[in-house]
Amino acid sequence: MSASSRILNLAVIPGDGIGQEVVAQGLKVLSAVLPQDVKLETEEYDFGAKRYHATGETLTDADLDSLKKHDAILLGAIGDPSVPSGVLERGFLLKLRFAFDHHVNLRPSKLLPGVSTPLAGQPEIDFVVVREGTEGPYTGNGGVIRKGTEHEVATEVSVNTAFGVERVVRDAFARAQARPRKKLTLVHKNNVLTFAGHLWTNIFNKVAAEFPEVTTDYIHVDAATIYLVTDPARFDVIVTDNLFGDIITDLAAAVSGGIGVAASGNINPSREFPSMFEPVHGSAPDIAGQGKADPTATVLSVALLLRHLGYEEQATRIEAAVSADLGERGDAVRSTDEIGDALVARVVAG
Amino acid sequence: MSASSRILNLAVIPGDGIGQEVVAQGLKVLSAVLPQDVKLETEEYDFGAKRYHATGETLTDADLDSLKKHDAILLGAIGDPSVPSGVLERGFLLKLRFAFDHHVNLRPSKLLPGVSTPLAGQPEIDFVVVREGTEGPYTGNGGVIRKGTEHEVATEVSVNTAFGVERVVRDAFARAQARPRKKLTLVHKNNVLTFAGHLWTNIFNKVAAEFPEVTTDYIHVDAATIYLVTDPARFDVIVTDNLFGDIITDLAAAVSGGIGVAASGNINPSREFPSMFEPVHGSAPDIAGQGKADPTATVLSVALLLRHLGYEEQATRIEAAVSADLGERGDAVRSTDEIGDALVARVVAG
Ligand SMILES: CC(C)[C@H](C(=O)O)[C@@H](O)C(=O)O
Ligand SMILES: CC(C)[C@H](C(=O)O)[C@@H](O)C(=O)O
Repeated sequence: MSASSRILNLAVIPGDGIGQEVVAQGLKVLSAVLPQDVKLETEEYDFGAKRYHATGETLTDADLDSLKKHDAILLGAIGDPSVPSGVLERGFLLKLRFAFDHHVNLRPSKLLPGVSTPLAGQPEIDFVVVREGTEGPYTGNGGVIRKGTEHEVATEVSVNTAFGVERVVRDAFARAQARPRKKLTLVHKNNVLTFAGHLWTNIFNKVAAEFPEVTTDYIHVDAATIYLVTDPARFDVIVTDNLFGDIITDLAAAVSGGIGVAASGNINPSREFPSMFEPVHGSAPDIAGQGKADPTATVLSVALLLRHLGYEEQATRIEAAVSADLGERGDAVRSTDEIGDALVARVVAG
Repeated sequence: MSASSRILNLAVIPGDGIGQEVVAQGLKVLSAVLPQDVKLETEEYDFGAKRYHATGETLTDADLDSLKKHDAILLGAIGDPSVPSGVLERGFLLKLRFAFDHHVNLRPSKLLPGVSTPLAGQPEIDFVVVREGTEGPYTGNGGVIRKGTEHEVATEVSVNTAFGVERVVRDAFARAQARPRKKLTLVHKNNVLTFAGHLWTNIFNKVAAEFPEVTTDYIHVDAATIYLVTDPARFDVIVTDNLFGDIITDLAAAVSGGIGVAASGNINPSREFPSMFEPVHGSAPDIAGQGKADPTATVLSVALLLRHLGYEEQATRIEAAVSADLGERGDAVRSTDEIGDALVARVVAG
């Protein structure tokens, strides 16, 4: 369903921990920013630890069928210490990314005025990581033999296909082309992971020929972590594999204001399946239910959601509201709700 | 050959780029610090880009036989833009680590007084990463089908064995036990790479039971990059797999004074084969031959080499010299040679 239908039919997955609280603020801001003639319809889903404990289910085929009917998905956070590591990650989060072919995992990093960074000085940071979302070491390929014995062997297979790499590289080039600096950096480890590295590098170079205006370079993932703290301004758009993208986007979030403000989109650009938008942060069970969680990352994820669905002006309005709010917020400690209200007030006024 | 034989028989591999310059300083300091009755014998090897271009060889079986006879290996840097990516890395650096079973890749990070860091404030940083050196995605397992076509598939296989994981985990526990804080952190991604992740986690927990004095915790690799910039003081000893170790040690080097001061040891604790010591930085061809390279990381690698061979007092003396030199160096730009001379003067006086 496209923007022109004037219905925005959203699947909402609050999830675990602080998920409920932050998603509530995201929806408040979304309602406030939508044009009057767009009707927001939401359906809430109870995925996460509670449902897993009650039913043993994480995400069924019926769930996927139901989720499929929405224009997009807004997710708070999934994960709880009571669930063994990997169960919800593989059984829900990754299952959804794979089922809906979310191959463009979009993670912008922008250090907004007034936001503190662990880096000295106040470096300029404004880049986007395009992380591949359906291949690499995330496929679940691999296995174990002789489990629990002194002869155990466990493997993890990173799977990289020309099809999968080319489509995400192409998406990243298009994004770089649309930005003022028009620069794209490939991050990989092609000097060690030579099989996958050559595939990524060759396809990157091939697609580069079609985007003569885009300046390109290549950095090994280890060196990329150095630049992210010593010279983050060198980055404009980064394209990288699923695991490297996971690692460097947490670092990118940390240097550009923390995961409290880091948004992400798990995007299927063809719109064959709904895309999913979520804050980069987790469920933070230690502060859940206390009104302490910062909903900013969720609100910025709503902006990405709107942009994906064609509501560019509304997305920009939210981003401007967040930017102004952060710049002027002073030292007062604010509750989740107060931050949400402040952002609503700004998008309404904006 | 052990310290008691009073001969230190070293293989020296200057390598490419700035390798020659920094290794010369490392040897100068080594000569100056060694007890009078220890005879230093060195044999230089010409591995690297030049030899590769001249002969097509990177590291032959005969080379390995020859290297085997030394007590240890000191390496400057290997790598040059004229050689295709991966050739020297896989053909020399990794081949040597695998051939000599360098399974403990030791990378200390310490922010010394007076050394600048990209982080705000001057956080306390004093930890050691124990990176596994012979398994994980570094084994070269994997392959390519339909190369160069739109149906290409490239795989990389991370291989993890109980044998390989347990020995490095055990080494890391012993190192943690010997440090004042006695804390060990496992870094992995066990919520996604569940096959390897469970192996690492189970072995880590099993060995932990034998070290009741060591406090342990676990962090996902993505979150570890956040802590490395927001709270590096939380780390004491980290143990992790080959690839995660590669990535986080570059970041660790960046936050604790830069790769100009980051030392490393590729250690075979059984001493069945000689261990290799090298600065973490690369060959930096852009500044090679200009006397601009900082030899500090190489000199600190010499300290690790001495400690490995049982020259604890001399190792400590070098580290104290470097610490004093950095703390008092002021703003003067010094040449490679001048830094080496300053360190020689200090170890002689110390
Ligand atoms: C929770 C986990 C499966 C996930 C990932 O590794 O992709 C998270 O770290 C992220 O970055 O979204
Ligand atoms: C050059 C490369 C093979 C090497 C590695 O990846 O181990 C380097 O980055 C390092 O950290 O020593």
